[in-house]
Amino acid sequence: MRTRRSLLDLDDLTADELSYIFERAANLMRGRLPQALKGVTCVNMFFEPSTRTYASFNLAEMRLGADIVNLAPNDLSLSHKGESIEDTAITLSAMGVDMLVLRHPDVGFPARVAKAFDGHVINAGDGCGAHPTQALLDIYTLLDEFGDLRDRTIAIVGDILHSRVANSTIRGLHRLGANVVLVGPEALLPHNLHEGAATVERNFDAVLATCDAVILLRIQRERFAEMPLDMKEYVERYCLSERRLRCLRGEAIVMHPGPYNRGIELDECVLEYAGWRYAKQVMHGVPVRMAVLDLLFNGFA
Amino acid sequence: MRTRRSLLDLDDLTADELSYIFERAANLMRGRLPQALKGVTCVNMFFEPSTRTYASFNLAEMRLGADIVNLAPNDLSLSHKGESIEDTAITLSAMGVDMLVLRHPDVGFPARVAKAFDGHVINAGDGCGAHPTQALLDIYTLLDEFGDLRDRTIAIVGDILHSRVANSTIRGLHRLGANVVLVGPEALLPHNLHEGAATVERNFDAVLATCDAVILLRIQRERFAEMPLDMKEYVERYCLSERRLRCLRGEAIVMHPGPYNRGIELDECVLEYAGWRYAKQVMHGVPVRMAVLDLLFNGFA
Amino acid sequence: MRTRRSLLDLDDLTADELSYIFERAANLMRGRLPQALKGVTCVNMFFEPSTRTYASFNLAEMRLGADIVNLAPNDLSLSHKGESIEDTAITLSAMGVDMLVLRHPDVGFPARVAKAFDGHVINAGDGCGAHPTQALLDIYTLLDEFGDLRDRTIAIVGDILHSRVANSTIRGLHRLGANVVLVGPEALLPHNLHEGAATVERNFDAVLATCDAVILLRIQRERFAEMPLDMKEYVERYCLSERRLRCLRGEAIVMHPGPYNRGIELDECVLEYAGWRYAKQVMHGVPVRMAVLDLLFNGFA
Repeated sequence: MRTRRSLLDLDDLTADELSYIFERAANLMRGRLPQALKGVTCVNMFFEPSTRTYASFNLAEMRLGADIVNLAPNDLSLSHKGESIEDTAITLSAMGVDMLVLRHPDVGFPARVAKAFDGHVINAGDGCGAHPTQALLDIYTLLDEFGDLRDRTIAIVGDILHSRVANSTIRGLHRLGANVVLVGPEALLPHNLHEGAATVERNFDAVLATCDAVILLRIQRERFAEMPLDMKEYVERYCLSERRLRCLRGEAIVMHPGPYNRGIELDECVLEYAGWRYAKQVMHGVPVRMAVLDLLFNGFA
Repeated sequence: MRTRRSLLDLDDLTADELSYIFERAANLMRGRLPQALKGVTCVNMFFEPSTRTYASFNLAEMRLGADIVNLAPNDLSLSHKGESIEDTAITLSAMGVDMLVLRHPDVGFPARVAKAFDGHVINAGDGCGAHPTQALLDIYTLLDEFGDLRDRTIAIVGDILHSRVANSTIRGLHRLGANVVLVGPEALLPHNLHEGAATVERNFDAVLATCDAVILLRIQRERFAEMPLDMKEYVERYCLSERRLRCLRGEAIVMHPGPYNRGIELDECVLEYAGWRYAKQVMHGVPVRMAVLDLLFNGFA
Repeated sequence: MRTRRSLLDLDDLTADELSYIFERAANLMRGRLPQALKGVTCVNMFFEPSTRTYASFNLAEMRLGADIVNLAPNDLSLSHKGESIEDTAITLSAMGVDMLVLRHPDVGFPARVAKAFDGHVINAGDGCGAHPTQALLDIYTLLDEFGDLRDRTIAIVGDILHSRVANSTIRGLHRLGANVVLVGPEALLPHNLHEGAATVERNFDAVLATCDAVILLRIQRERFAEMPLDMKEYVERYCLSERRLRCLRGEAIVMHPGPYNRGIELDECVLEYAGWRYAKQVMHGVPVRMAVLDLLFNGFA
């Protein structure tokens, strides 16, 4: 019987494992470990459209030598035959599938699967729940920049309520000693404020001069039943405009989990800003995911 | 010119080939033959949604070292340009594709393709027609349990009319000397009763004490124009309930090609029954398919 | 920094490169170069349904040893999050993707992507724009037949207006010295007549006895807002019927980029004609694409 290790959220990883993942990712930048998952079967099941996370996991798995099956279930394929996801998980276990990478619109879906699946489950985004590998690559990008996050101030700006990335990132940053400030209108802030892991600031301008990094978030229109915001007002108050960019400290960096919407959460000029780290975040995605997959399957090297 | 060997239904295999497949599958359990299909191109074309058969063929092909292209044609992709499937088959032949694994809602579709395609065609399910590799893995599971099927009694219960699996399995079991009993309401039984290969019994309770194995089938709602059944009555008469489970002989096993519907053809308790063999069936799927692909392409070792 | 070489249309290739591709393709017929793209990541993004081009690129990439990710974006996946294709291109660059093969309904789409993507872009068909690899395989098929195209007469018949293949092929044939005659009703001819690269002939019968090759084209119904043609009249005037086939010179060949529509641009008898080269065209697709990919990435051997 294999040891089942899943990654549903950052809390599943110990401090040692976090450090190990970041070190290993640094060594795997554009590298390969073709023996690490040789003979291991990975199934990617994406119930929501995805380009970057889907491609990133595929590349990470390939570079570790895994056998890959991509299942792109449309709404019909699971439901029309009446099979529950737990039964699908049992089926994939019986088939000898070792790892299951899951994206799904429902919070808690990967956790349900992990109970039924005899192997490793990785949450690649569950609704507004969690997205631990994106959080890991964001934190890796910050560590790569600052070395240590203790007493660094990180502002997370925008639709925090619906952001599975923010959910995971906030907890991770707090564990590493950073000051996390959540910035946005009341309608986009979580009701539970992550138990003291972060403070709230409604006024974006008030934090510009003091933060080391700004993480911008997309407004997830698809998760609102009805949009509670006046977008023009939102842009006025929270868009990272040229004026606001000039208020940042010189060494401050700007990040975004992507995809970003020009003219809403950021202005075109941000893409030319010296501290814009989007491309680095994406670049870190593959080695961070390689490190995660390798750790879950093989443990510490 | 290659020898074209297709597997459209079990009748395409001789008794020697059947034995060979079962022996080879036993040796391939979780194994690999990375040279068997090295340089061979397999195309999987699934015109109906599929999780288990699709993943199972992909894994079998991978473990034999094949090059794999997955084509998931939606309704539009073939029709909107007006190309016939025969012409697509000619195209894939010209491209050097060696094996074509096909699932399609129309009975006889793989046979039409096999006439035009210069390579090996495997039927992965055609409407209510046949599904030979599922039948092979079911029969393998029975042989694994009983060693020999002569004079064993196998009850197949439920929507036999629409079951391509049952169609293929009944013939295979008959060839191996088993007594096959078809159990279900008149509306779900085939009009042609497989030419003496099976007997019919309307009363499920009457066969419980005498059969060695029960194969449950899903009611294929998607293949009915109008449902001719009262489902409550169906469950009462044909669901494998706790009461019925207790009437089985101690060594009797229960199978299901999947996906199964809890509360319709089986109760939750069946999933805990010591003789429940669903996971074994799925597990056998990959090595049985490896054996089939290897035999079709390479002949006897 | 890698050298970015894209293939958006035939004009991107020098005469030397054209010759090199054709020579290399001849050597790669059913062969493999598993080291050529080892460690290279190819992403295939097909925004329109495709069977032959999609499979052909996949096989070419596999036989060159590339790592392959297939992205099949439906209408929603890119648009619903509001990301522009340029930003997707930046993302894929950051991920370390080396080559991007693109099919899209909009003319100029691959060119837009090539500006943002830090790697090689191959146009696999953009609306009614261009389809350079199909043109290359068509020209290769003609060269394979005739050795030299100078003073050969090639008739291209049918919906030239909407044919990205014709657009690319006409220019390529003209560069190689062939006489290109465009045959079809006024409504299906381009307004700009490729600047003297071709002449026009409304009467198909008038060219039958003089051409060395006939390239038939499909009427691309999906690209018409309203069909300006009486189909019965079209068939009468432009279908390659048995009568017309008999008027061809004995050594004349007939080609079609596929998919072909029997009873519209050709009659069944064409498929039995000794000079029918469709299967050869398809067969040439994989080695020609291998040669292109290898040249773009590795340059002259």
